[in-house]
Amino acid sequence: MPTPYEAPLALIRAAIDQAARAAGTDSIAGHEEAFGETADAVLAGVARMARDVLSPLNTVGDAAPSRLTAHGVVTPSGFREAYRRFCADGWPTICAPPRFGGQGLPMLLGAAATESWGGANLSFAMCPEAATGAVEALRLHASPALQERYLPPLVRGEWTASMCLTEPHAGSDLSTVRTMAEPDGESWRLGGRKIFISWGDHDLADNVVHLVLARTPGAPAGLKGISLFLVPKVLPLAPGTPRAPDGLPGSSWGTRNDIHAVSLEHKMGIRASPTCVMALGEHGGARGWLVGPLHEGLGCLFAMMNHMRLGVGLHSTGVAERAWQLARGYAHERRQGRAGGDPQGAQRPIIEHPDVRRMLLTMKALTHGARSLAYYAAATLDVAYSGTGEPARARAARRLALLTPLVKAWCSDVAVEVASLGVQIHGGTGYVDGEISQVYRDARIGPIFEGTNYIQAHDLLARKVIRDAGATLEEWLAEMERAARSLEHRHSASRPREAAATAGADRGLALLAAGLLAECADLRAAARRLIEASGSQPHLAGSVAYPFLQWLAVVATGWQWALAADDARARHADDALARGLLDCARFYGAHLLPRARTHAAAVASGTDILLTPRPAEI
Amino acid sequence: MPTPYEAPLALIRAAIDQAARAAGTDSIAGHEEAFGETADAVLAGVARMARDVLSPLNTVGDAAPSRLTAHGVVTPSGFREAYRRFCADGWPTICAPPRFGGQGLPMLLGAAATESWGGANLSFAMCPEAATGAVEALRLHASPALQERYLPPLVRGEWTASMCLTEPHAGSDLSTVRTMAEPDGESWRLGGRKIFISWGDHDLADNVVHLVLARTPGAPAGLKGISLFLVPKVLPLAPGTPRAPDGLPGSSWGTRNDIHAVSLEHKMGIRASPTCVMALGEHGGARGWLVGPLHEGLGCLFAMMNHMRLGVGLHSTGVAERAWQLARGYAHERRQGRAGGDPQGAQRPIIEHPDVRRMLLTMKALTHGARSLAYYAAATLDVAYSGTGEPARARAARRLALLTPLVKAWCSDVAVEVASLGVQIHGGTGYVDGEISQVYRDARIGPIFEGTNYIQAHDLLARKVIRDAGATLEEWLAEMERAARSLEHRHSASRPREAAATAGADRGLALLAAGLLAECADLRAAARRLIEASGSQPHLAGSVAYPFLQWLAVVATGWQWALAADDARARHADDALARGLLDCARFYGAHLLPRARTHAAAVASGTDILLTPRPAEI
Repeated sequence: MPTPYEAPLALIRAAIDQAARAAGTDSIAGHEEAFGETADAVLAGVARMARDVLSPLNTVGDAAPSRLTAHGVVTPSGFREAYRRFCADGWPTICAPPRFGGQGLPMLLGAAATESWGGANLSFAMCPEAATGAVEALRLHASPALQERYLPPLVRGEWTASMCLTEPHAGSDLSTVRTMAEPDGESWRLGGRKIFISWGDHDLADNVVHLVLARTPGAPAGLKGISLFLVPKVLPLAPGTPRAPDGLPGSSWGTRNDIHAVSLEHKMGIRASPTCVMALGEHGGARGWLVGPLHEGLGCLFAMMNHMRLGVGLHSTGVAERAWQLARGYAHERRQGRAGGDPQGAQRPIIEHPDVRRMLLTMKALTHGARSLAYYAAATLDVAYSGTGEPARARAARRLALLTPLVKAWCSDVAVEVASLGVQIHGGTGYVDGEISQVYRDARIGPIFEGTNYIQAHDLLARKVIRDAGATLEEWLAEMERAARSLEHRHSASRPREAAATAGADRGLALLAAGLLAECADLRAAARRLIEASGSQPHLAGSVAYPFLQWLAVVATGWQWALAADDARARHADDALARGLLDCARFYGAHLLPRARTHAAAVASGTDILLTPRPAEI
Repeated sequence: MPTPYEAPLALIRAAIDQAARAAGTDSIAGHEEAFGETADAVLAGVARMARDVLSPLNTVGDAAPSRLTAHGVVTPSGFREAYRRFCADGWPTICAPPRFGGQGLPMLLGAAATESWGGANLSFAMCPEAATGAVEALRLHASPALQERYLPPLVRGEWTASMCLTEPHAGSDLSTVRTMAEPDGESWRLGGRKIFISWGDHDLADNVVHLVLARTPGAPAGLKGISLFLVPKVLPLAPGTPRAPDGLPGSSWGTRNDIHAVSLEHKMGIRASPTCVMALGEHGGARGWLVGPLHEGLGCLFAMMNHMRLGVGLHSTGVAERAWQLARGYAHERRQGRAGGDPQGAQRPIIEHPDVRRMLLTMKALTHGARSLAYYAAATLDVAYSGTGEPARARAARRLALLTPLVKAWCSDVAVEVASLGVQIHGGTGYVDGEISQVYRDARIGPIFEGTNYIQAHDLLARKVIRDAGATLEEWLAEMERAARSLEHRHSASRPREAAATAGADRGLALLAAGLLAECADLRAAARRLIEASGSQPHLAGSVAYPFLQWLAVVATGWQWALAADDARARHADDALARGLLDCARFYGAHLLPRARTHAAAVASGTDILLTPRPAEI
């Protein structure tokens, strides 16, 4: 029997409250309503769907992946029914715009759902995530006619979506995309081949709406000649045309478009999720419609990409949570070793062993820290969209631009590390095919897809930090410092002595606060040096981007733990959740925040250390 | 076509020379001969065997693992022939004692072979490794009669061996072993069940010699009541009895013993290696012979375990080397991005991108660093066995005791990290089933088997550092400091200015030297504090063992890089190998040695941070 995934509702609720406060979502109309009873009902439903419907299929899909047949991709047993239930319960609609049939709930609430889908069944979760990302891009950039025809079924989940970027020679560098689109009346005809297309074909829904990057005749070379096209798997009939009740998907109620999955990748993980090679126009041309202005395809797709990046961060958090749940469960059950080495004594659950605790606390501190940061990004997105006043919205949008690559890269790196610790806690059992080994294999995709983590790091440093001369970063660092100072003030040694039992606790929080303050100051100084030097050193940003991202992420997660600790002290007083969070915050300060020093050293080492070696001598 | 594994002979040769000097093997009789032309011939043979015979089978075994049939375990296609060739070429014998048919070559040379077998085909490599480990235990602890009967075929590789420790309820804690041995004339009858037995059954050789931990009637509870037994799969006929030429293995030339593989694990990696559940005595009792004194089984098995631990370190180094070769090859071939962003420019190999270089240099610095340290352990073993004078041998034995757990844990952790970087450099291609994804899955076993890495860390800190009050560690740290001072002296800023081209180089080496000196001092102080405090804090060693091991490993690897840098400067002058090593040494000082700070902080945080949380609140 597979172990069910349990959405950690108490931690989720704590992270939601913390993110709402930190991002200031209370200025948003309807905030109270969304986070009152509505939220409780939504979260309870999320937990049920994740546990009862998605989670039981996770190992099924790993053992018998999606496969390609003459009639297209067939998903693992049970996935169709699960997806039907998922849509019937309205989950695709929760954060979608009401204009197109969505419920318009805050992204912060949606974040909890997205995390839980990823934790319960990452392969499955990727499918609706792409659809909501496409909704985002189409809502902002498609013509009203396209919106009217495509958005309602996408929002309802009746249709799904894919993002068609990569070609064999064009991965991280999309400037060499060769797929061509030729004008053909009101539409376009596309031809080419796309690879690594997640959920590019499947049997869960009647239609797949592909958002395809392609080049048009006479377009400039490079990224500036790429346009975005909507290419449906099935060309829908005109609105109002009756659909034959007995038809095969895409045959009797519309025309099959010339875009086909021609092969699937065999992958080490996310095996239920079909990763397709898509052939466009092998039989006369795939019909497509331009989305947004000609030659501005990449910019238009960014709405979807940014959504997917936040999605990877949230899914990865769920994957880490899954590893943590399995490892924690195992550590409570598995007995090895005896108290005091007494050969007659009873064997103790391994959670009593200090090193197992070290691993578990690392997992929890990283996972809940990643969650807090990802939720904070979602709340910031809510403010960027719906906050009161243009200045507040603009400020949130800038902060979000910085957070998006950070959350994508950091949460996915965290998931890989946490999954590995989960395997380690299981010992030999973890290496045998089973739930934790699937988590380990599934997690590894996160740092790769939707832009490798280096691509995120470069985006963060070159575009989000250097380009505005550090303004957005410094504003954020100042906020972190305020939180650290508040924590320090409450727990510094000069405060009146508390009871002996909490004295150690205070030292732990004071250490976290002091570490954070030191790191913020160093980060600010390092960023200033980088901004200044990057003008004359073209390779500087690329050389230090990745350790810079890690540094900032370790510090920002420490900031989230400082907020969590303050809140746990102030609000929860003496309950188990609060104690657990305080323990974790102290652990973060002692064991994990010090990682910042390593990243700082790598940033300080600059470019020469990387560029001096001749390629043949590396 | 699979990419062949190429033993990195130039780096191997450099590591051998460095280890020989650092451990002082030149005092050993026959040293000159072993490391002259003999070594060149052996290494060339190793490279051929790894490349031509073992490496092509690596993906074969992953795709179609060993399986259990009514006649026992059948290995993947080609493995039998490869093993026959492996034995015909004499590889199992190279380091074995001449008394029993071995060639008696130094372990330092054997280390290069072991590494290469692991890099070419980890699943395969585990099989002969267990046999040489068993030779070690039997050579030291078995009766002359057992030695005479079992050692020659084991040394020749005609028979293989397994180590039968783990039971379902007895993993890291062997004190609860339940397998029973009852006296039965000159031998014993064993009954019980062992799990996770690597190469417990197979069709490569005629016999498998199992070394089995079991309890005897009336034995004390716990580890002190466990004895070691030799339990052959086939009971050999008396020496001189002719073997029927047409017989099935184990049928016509001896009696099948009552020990059988009853199921195999399905694992995420090392899939060709059969991991067996072994049933003993289901049909009347498995005949076994006592090895070493009654109740001292664990101590007698340590000879094999220590051999296997060094083996894991060497195999893991090979696995890391494999990841490095694949990633380096890919980085030279794969083209993405253009010089200066010029959309018309040619795409550049990704090895020109700074962040790809950062990943590659991390891989190389960790891999060759791990190799150097593991070879140093092998050379120390040679001195411990054959060094001139009892004091030198005793000193080497103490150092080796400290090195063994360090090498096992560190090299296997390195392999996991390096494999993950290898996947990352491959991008989406790395996630698709293929050679690098196999490396990623294979590598993950290293930190788990032959004693988890925490078990190694605890052994290191509690038994090898605290028990002798730090004497062995301090002696080693002083040696590291001498090397760091020598490097610092040569490259400090106060030295006469060198040519502009090498000025940066010197700063890099000076940074490495200064970092090493600081870390050695801190480590010494931390170890002293731990030794002092551990008397009154029973959980201290367990709480900080793992970060302590990592800290020491990061520093010791830095020491190896200091030696490599000094040597590269002095001996190789201006060749590509030397430049590559110098680049790597500088990189280690800038990017990797700073990790020591994180581990130091975790060590400093002690036990409370881990033991305060209540189990239910973790």
